[in-house]
Amino acid sequence: MSKSYIIDTTKSAAAKLVPLPVANVSFAPESFWAGYREGNRTISIPKLFELFEEKGILDNFRRLTGQKKCERRGPLFTDSDIYKWMEAAAFALTDQDDPDIRRQLETAITVILPAQCDDGYLNTFFTKPEERFTNPDAHEMYCAGHYFQAAIAIDRCLGDDRVLNSAIRFADYLYNRFGPDKKEVWACGHPEIEMALVELYRTTDDKKYLDFSRHILDQLNADASWKTAWSEDCTVKFTERTELWGHAVRNLYMACGGSDLWAETDDPQIAQAVNRLWQNLVNRRIYITGGVGSRYRHEAIGLDYELPNLLAYTETCAAIANVMWNYRNLHITADARFADWLERSLYNGVISGISLDYQHYFYVNPLASFGDHQRQKWFDTTCCPSNLQRLLAMLPGYFYSTDNEGVWVHLYDTGTAGITLKNGDQLTLTQQTKYPYDGLIVMTINTDKPETFNLNLRIPSWADSCDIKINGQAVGNSATPGQYFSINRTWTNGDRVELTLPMPLKFIACHSHVTDNFHRVAMMRGPLVYCIEDVDNKNLKSVHEVGIKNDFSILASQAVIIPTAKFDFTTLAVKSPAFEFQSEDALYRPVTKLEVKHRPTQIIAIPYYIWANRGRSEMTIWLPVIE
Amino acid sequence: MSKSYIIDTTKSAAAKLVPLPVANVSFAPESFWAGYREGNRTISIPKLFELFEEKGILDNFRRLTGQKKCERRGPLFTDSDIYKWMEAAAFALTDQDDPDIRRQLETAITVILPAQCDDGYLNTFFTKPEERFTNPDAHEMYCAGHYFQAAIAIDRCLGDDRVLNSAIRFADYLYNRFGPDKKEVWACGHPEIEMALVELYRTTDDKKYLDFSRHILDQLNADASWKTAWSEDCTVKFTERTELWGHAVRNLYMACGGSDLWAETDDPQIAQAVNRLWQNLVNRRIYITGGVGSRYRHEAIGLDYELPNLLAYTETCAAIANVMWNYRNLHITADARFADWLERSLYNGVISGISLDYQHYFYVNPLASFGDHQRQKWFDTTCCPSNLQRLLAMLPGYFYSTDNEGVWVHLYDTGTAGITLKNGDQLTLTQQTKYPYDGLIVMTINTDKPETFNLNLRIPSWADSCDIKINGQAVGNSATPGQYFSINRTWTNGDRVELTLPMPLKFIACHSHVTDNFHRVAMMRGPLVYCIEDVDNKNLKSVHEVGIKNDFSILASQAVIIPTAKFDFTTLAVKSPAFEFQSEDALYRPVTKLEVKHRPTQIIAIPYYIWANRGRSEMTIWLPVIE
Repeated sequence: MSKSYIIDTTKSAAAKLVPLPVANVSFAPESFWAGYREGNRTISIPKLFELFEEKGILDNFRRLTGQKKCERRGPLFTDSDIYKWMEAAAFALTDQDDPDIRRQLETAITVILPAQCDDGYLNTFFTKPEERFTNPDAHEMYCAGHYFQAAIAIDRCLGDDRVLNSAIRFADYLYNRFGPDKKEVWACGHPEIEMALVELYRTTDDKKYLDFSRHILDQLNADASWKTAWSEDCTVKFTERTELWGHAVRNLYMACGGSDLWAETDDPQIAQAVNRLWQNLVNRRIYITGGVGSRYRHEAIGLDYELPNLLAYTETCAAIANVMWNYRNLHITADARFADWLERSLYNGVISGISLDYQHYFYVNPLASFGDHQRQKWFDTTCCPSNLQRLLAMLPGYFYSTDNEGVWVHLYDTGTAGITLKNGDQLTLTQQTKYPYDGLIVMTINTDKPETFNLNLRIPSWADSCDIKINGQAVGNSATPGQYFSINRTWTNGDRVELTLPMPLKFIACHSHVTDNFHRVAMMRGPLVYCIEDVDNKNLKSVHEVGIKNDFSILASQAVIIPTAKFDFTTLAVKSPAFEFQSEDALYRPVTKLEVKHRPTQIIAIPYYIWANRGRSEMTIWLPVIE
Repeated sequence: MSKSYIIDTTKSAAAKLVPLPVANVSFAPESFWAGYREGNRTISIPKLFELFEEKGILDNFRRLTGQKKCERRGPLFTDSDIYKWMEAAAFALTDQDDPDIRRQLETAITVILPAQCDDGYLNTFFTKPEERFTNPDAHEMYCAGHYFQAAIAIDRCLGDDRVLNSAIRFADYLYNRFGPDKKEVWACGHPEIEMALVELYRTTDDKKYLDFSRHILDQLNADASWKTAWSEDCTVKFTERTELWGHAVRNLYMACGGSDLWAETDDPQIAQAVNRLWQNLVNRRIYITGGVGSRYRHEAIGLDYELPNLLAYTETCAAIANVMWNYRNLHITADARFADWLERSLYNGVISGISLDYQHYFYVNPLASFGDHQRQKWFDTTCCPSNLQRLLAMLPGYFYSTDNEGVWVHLYDTGTAGITLKNGDQLTLTQQTKYPYDGLIVMTINTDKPETFNLNLRIPSWADSCDIKINGQAVGNSATPGQYFSINRTWTNGDRVELTLPMPLKFIACHSHVTDNFHRVAMMRGPLVYCIEDVDNKNLKSVHEVGIKNDFSILASQAVIIPTAKFDFTTLAVKSPAFEFQSEDALYRPVTKLEVKHRPTQIIAIPYYIWANRGRSEMTIWLPVIE
């Protein structure tokens, strides 16, 4: 049992940072994330398990051992959903013991372990050996990867290696069949196992899993066999790819595997590929919400600047994968660019996927809606709910890292972190803040004795400036948004750091190649993207027929920030002057000059992540600009 | 054998007009449509038949009779593709005999007829009686409907009733099993048979087919069994529907069946439903190209104003179905509104589906492209190519109709129509024009003796005005665009009517609820929608980064209309001043005022229907407007 790391980079050749284990960080009850964590543990996780039982997902394993006589149910990849849930359960239990989840997890383990074949293979869809590995799109290695990740989480968080031992047997079966020096070659149409094998290497110190991961990565797209489901016409190897194109989650999981291999091997080819692909994504193919995936067709990332709002696919899993990928890159490079996009996805495109009652989900997270989107309790392909649950369960682990010189703070929320310094000394760092709704973060050091180390604070790129005080004394004139500001000093008990990040309402324009956003702006405040939803704007015909005046500084000064207790926790809405269009009835009309008749009105905007919590609703992020 | 009508409304209770048979109209070699008709006969039709043989579509029938031992190939509805092809072949042969097509058609007939079961059932996918009609989405009645239409076409055009007799046996099997007074109830998930049964009634005078059609229409959507494929959550009966929603082709075929039933029964409930749905479509859900169907998901029509450009699905078959539906409504009402949308679809969203070499097709016809659309010779679901072929084969029949008082001219092109007046006298009407590129149409009457009748000329709604002269004398001061102008006089041989429809470049604005088209205009000239394609605009970074000044009257006066012989037939391109954006690199950037830096440039626009004939290309219709 190692510590409850999300990824264990303690021995990674190319990684500058080591994450703080999940168990070391806790959120205070009044924090932004406490509700999510609590809801996850007490509602989301136990309810999903009940649904697994109701939908036969666990029975698929009982069927293999003869415990249950039934037909297999669900799509061929349902094993992975329960594995992701197990990973979530294990991380959730680092927080606070929970007898219900512990019992459910024990049920899952005792149902699954006996279903493993003698040769190590485990999959409920393929029951005859000759059926295995006949269809690259059958997700066998994908399911296996999720099994390994669940196993590692249960080992790291609970000190229980039963599943890990089973996972090793499965991994060895796969290695002995498809490993680097074997006759048979296989790469699953859905990447995932690449990162799982690296983590298995980190857990076991057995380098063959690392080599196996690299071997699989090198097979990906090496021929056209994945054509439709995976990446359309992409037949380019990972190390040669220049763009992220095709199925969003598959591509981003592949990229995560690439980054893990970069961390372990420091291979410049892989490093360059990761950086190329990341630049391609954030400069041309990602939504302002941190969502990824423009197309319903093949659940795919589109071409450069193909970012439709209404028909955005932006699967919750893809935003989560983007968080995972940026987290990996951040730990390799300590470059704040990665933390910026991690934060962007997390606060917008990820948590838009779960309702405020913690039991209704979105699979797609569009940037505009005509009111036809509705959250659901269950999807036959229930990848997103279980993925959200594991992300929220391990969320504390996303906040801090350490290196030889000190501590890195990536994200802000009220709570406490237990930190072990290089010299073995321990201290705690507490945060007090109303982030993401307010930019004042007060940090306090609790230490038995004075300690000299760097405290690296992320200054988000969305901030125009920042103000840093230590024990009331201004420091940090040189702090630059979009970078970490490093404070090196000898810290004594009770030292207090005040970081102030101004959060004015900001208006964001988009590259003009993005056809959907021409002559539009989006509103952001701090890390949050805002949207307008018809339930708050009943004075309007439609949220799609309103625009704002092309002078945003005046607009920002006239906007009113209103705290609202409408939702389960503090939300700041923005009330802003706007103009409602007075459209003619005709769908198409000849004109000699384009004029949009309009009359003054006002709009109320709310953070995007809480949209669609009050029934079906029209919604939009990108507001038309009128003169 | 009746005449080669597209639809035979000679005895329809509610129809004001009777179409001129296809065989009565011919296009001159220099006409706009002659190339399409000739290409259809000499290239498209014979090559598709060869592909049917190559892909095993006919072998699926040979397999049933033991002529060929093979597995069935293709999706379950491939029978319909060959039936649509047969309909095309029959109408193509009204023009000009063609031994190749005649031989191919004879092959099809002699392969298909013996495959019919003794009880009349015919389908290559369901070979065991107990499998029939177990899956509403299995297209059995859809295929049957196309069989009936092919049979009627072969009978009407070639006087050959072999297939018609087989179709009647099949229809009787269906009627005896699912007819109005039978125990079993069935409505196919893909409408089509409704209109085919009405036409079978018109052909046979057997009213049971009319009753059967009505019975099926009443079943459609009566329960939720079609939920996914057909119309999502729509469970509203046709006569109660208020909106077109769900699968575009299925909905429009359903609407065609409704209109045919309206024509025959004059049922006010059906008439009202047709009008409601039509209003919903043309006021809120149709593209400027006459394309229908906003979503890849379920190939569906979207919600009101959901008209994305880049991800428009706009299946060629849906635009064809819109032509068919408007043609039916036009013959019932003689209302030019229907002819306007028929023309709009035909010249834009329909023929964009076929290449200028007549052998490459588009299934989807988006209104913008990032260059990832490419025409194909074959689709496994090859509905669109065969549908285009039958439309082009019967196109002459779309031009004219008659009523008791005279002649109606719906469309304009150079050619001759043979017309039989109510009194039995015959005359010919010739047109001379460069339509759709020029608005002067010269019509000449050739008659043995003076005849008194109304000549009803359609004045398209896109015209701002028109000028009509008879033998050089101005008439028609009261002619109104969007209506027919009726000239009642005694016509003598050689009488010459000159209709002039001004065709300035026009700029079309869109309802502001259509989010994709905010602050954009489209260019039209006559019935043609224009687009810009990168192959003509290599001076630009991208056709998606160019806009035009918000003063279109000046722009229109500065635009240059250039005839071009780049393509196989006359094309008018438009060269217009424009502004290229000088974008910043950032995908997202904060702004206090939205400013689009730009520099003068020019754009060349071509008619939309000829886009993507020179390889993959970026393309756009809706141009950004800058101040």
